[in-house]
Amino acid sequence: MAKDFVVTPWEVSGDIDYEKLIRDFGTQPLSQKHTELIEKLAGRKNHMLDRKIFFSHRDLDWFLAEYQKHKQVALYTGRGPSGPVHLGHLMPWFFTKYLQDAFKCPLYFQMTDDEKFLFKDSLSQKDTLNWSMENSLDVMAVGFDPARTKIFIDTKSIAKLYPLALEVSKRVTYSTAKAVFGYKDSSNIGEIFFTSVQSAPALLPSAEARQKKGAKGDEIVPVLIPCAIDQDPHFRVTRDVAQKLGFPKPAEIHSTFFPSLAGSGKMSASDPLSAIYTTDSEEVIRKKVGRAFTGGRPTVAEQRKLGGNPEICSVCQYLKFFFEPDDRKLEERLRAYKNGEILDGENKAYLADKIVDFLAEHQKRREQARKVLDKVID
Amino acid sequence: MAKDFVVTPWEVSGDIDYEKLIRDFGTQPLSQKHTELIEKLAGRKNHMLDRKIFFSHRDLDWFLAEYQKHKQVALYTGRGPSGPVHLGHLMPWFFTKYLQDAFKCPLYFQMTDDEKFLFKDSLSQKDTLNWSMENSLDVMAVGFDPARTKIFIDTKSIAKLYPLALEVSKRVTYSTAKAVFGYKDSSNIGEIFFTSVQSAPALLPSAEARQKKGAKGDEIVPVLIPCAIDQDPHFRVTRDVAQKLGFPKPAEIHSTFFPSLAGSGKMSASDPLSAIYTTDSEEVIRKKVGRAFTGGRPTVAEQRKLGGNPEICSVCQYLKFFFEPDDRKLEERLRAYKNGEILDGENKAYLADKIVDFLAEHQKRREQARKVLDKVID
Repeated sequence: MAKDFVVTPWEVSGDIDYEKLIRDFGTQPLSQKHTELIEKLAGRKNHMLDRKIFFSHRDLDWFLAEYQKHKQVALYTGRGPSGPVHLGHLMPWFFTKYLQDAFKCPLYFQMTDDEKFLFKDSLSQKDTLNWSMENSLDVMAVGFDPARTKIFIDTKSIAKLYPLALEVSKRVTYSTAKAVFGYKDSSNIGEIFFTSVQSAPALLPSAEARQKKGAKGDEIVPVLIPCAIDQDPHFRVTRDVAQKLGFPKPAEIHSTFFPSLAGSGKMSASDPLSAIYTTDSEEVIRKKVGRAFTGGRPTVAEQRKLGGNPEICSVCQYLKFFFEPDDRKLEERLRAYKNGEILDGENKAYLADKIVDFLAEHQKRREQARKVLDKVID
Repeated sequence: MAKDFVVTPWEVSGDIDYEKLIRDFGTQPLSQKHTELIEKLAGRKNHMLDRKIFFSHRDLDWFLAEYQKHKQVALYTGRGPSGPVHLGHLMPWFFTKYLQDAFKCPLYFQMTDDEKFLFKDSLSQKDTLNWSMENSLDVMAVGFDPARTKIFIDTKSIAKLYPLALEVSKRVTYSTAKAVFGYKDSSNIGEIFFTSVQSAPALLPSAEARQKKGAKGDEIVPVLIPCAIDQDPHFRVTRDVAQKLGFPKPAEIHSTFFPSLAGSGKMSASDPLSAIYTTDSEEVIRKKVGRAFTGGRPTVAEQRKLGGNPEICSVCQYLKFFFEPDDRKLEERLRAYKNGEILDGENKAYLADKIVDFLAEHQKRREQARKVLDKVID
């Protein structure tokens, strides 16, 4: 039986029952049909779809139908820049890049430096702006097309976002915000307003298209938001208000959470051993993987005899989520782990090699990204 | 006995007891000493001080002492651009010009187009932006020094205001905002955030001075806010937070409300006969003054015999507030009105002439202001 769990934009904890989350949030499960259509449109398969790491959606059928009618579409995702980027952050961005390649469309990437300032006592605006710049390097290292990508750092792009945020905020009562986000009397008034700013980029593609057409424009640019499921409450609000404003409701496609190396729950920036940062050295990576929580047994003899449990093993989960994209190899490895043919030490070394190679490449591209930052930051 | 009255930034009604307001709001009464010092520094008298139309303050002694130490100071006032400007709006601006002349200092003038959009269902952002431009003509027609005046239209200047608004909003809980402004669950989340944006210009002079000095700057620029007393709740919040942020608390000097032509309460844009707009024609002015509520008697004979009541007479009050700056002439006229020597018809004609002359001049300067608007709007 699943333990209690909490999923909000600001807290994810407990053993998450993703099927219950679909029911609680009122989203739709991603079906085989969706996976097949996206992979057909993209012209290639994606293991995050095949393995149901992206598992839920809102209005994806509408978005894909609009795209197939050769409409202009846009993608929107973002990051709360409160610290360094870890592997869990990268995963949905790689998926977003897969979608940008598929749809050859603009990506609106929001850095919510204002949010992180408002919600974290310890962070100054200077801190969150610095993290915005640092994190932007990671974003562009993923390989987004610089000609089709705009990064909006909220405090820097506020002139563009504020008019739309005002339209949203006028149509969201405190009562609604409290129900959706659980605000209390002790919440600060910036936190309460913030969801309006997160809504703005979802409306911006249509707003910009209308502006180009002049006062009479009623263009719609369908928007798809790839994000972890904890961001859905924001976009539930956005979707309600979008309709009132004559904008299309943005579609969403949701991922589960990248597992923590420490065991249950998502990777957390507050537990340094639970997450591997994109700037970690080889030594640190190997140390962290070495200490990872696994599905092994107390002794080698027992593990040989009884086998390991890949479901609770963070090393196996890392391979499944991202680092063993080859389905056949993954299946074989998980089978062997379960049967006791592969022990934790070997499994960890295998994963560590993969991560070390991956991050060496990422760190190279991260340095190269310095050259495009001026161009992609709005 | 005074009836119940309400004074908030969004509602002013009833018979206002200004002495009670000073006690309720916790401000200080303006003393003869203040009046004399300001007039000495200005080098000339001001009838709005002499007649206690400006009647209350916060930290005015500190502000004047700082000014006398040859410190750089600044003035900050504003306008909610929801419609045309009427005479009641102009009065504190003329006083603010008197202060700008006295202190030879910058004026930060805020047009809260976002506020009016958020609080008025019927207004679009396009409406409030249009009113911001129109109202700016009236502001500059008052005669502010264009080289020392900056008009901040919130949605246009938000890039400059937002970082300070965030600092404020992080330090104001919903509970505080609710207590000060009376927000309800049905208030929209833009309304709740807005006071942060109104705080920003009060901190901007010091913030700008610090920015010039670099990271180590701790300059303070004392700010004085001349405004009608209904705006005090906003600045009470600003003052609390300013201190937490290491900024000086802005000082305030408060006016009573310009009387309504319809009798009790302040001039109101929602009752067209109660207010004279700066763009009204001579015909309309004379018609409105002709219908004004007076302190007269049912018949001419009675008024000759018993005299009028200048205290409740909007025509007498207009003369006192603004249109008869000559103390001797005013005193003589009010005495004669009280004794029945002057009747309503004559009194109205006298005031109408004054207003017609005043607005003819204002309308001329309003047209000339079109030339400086580009320069003064931030």
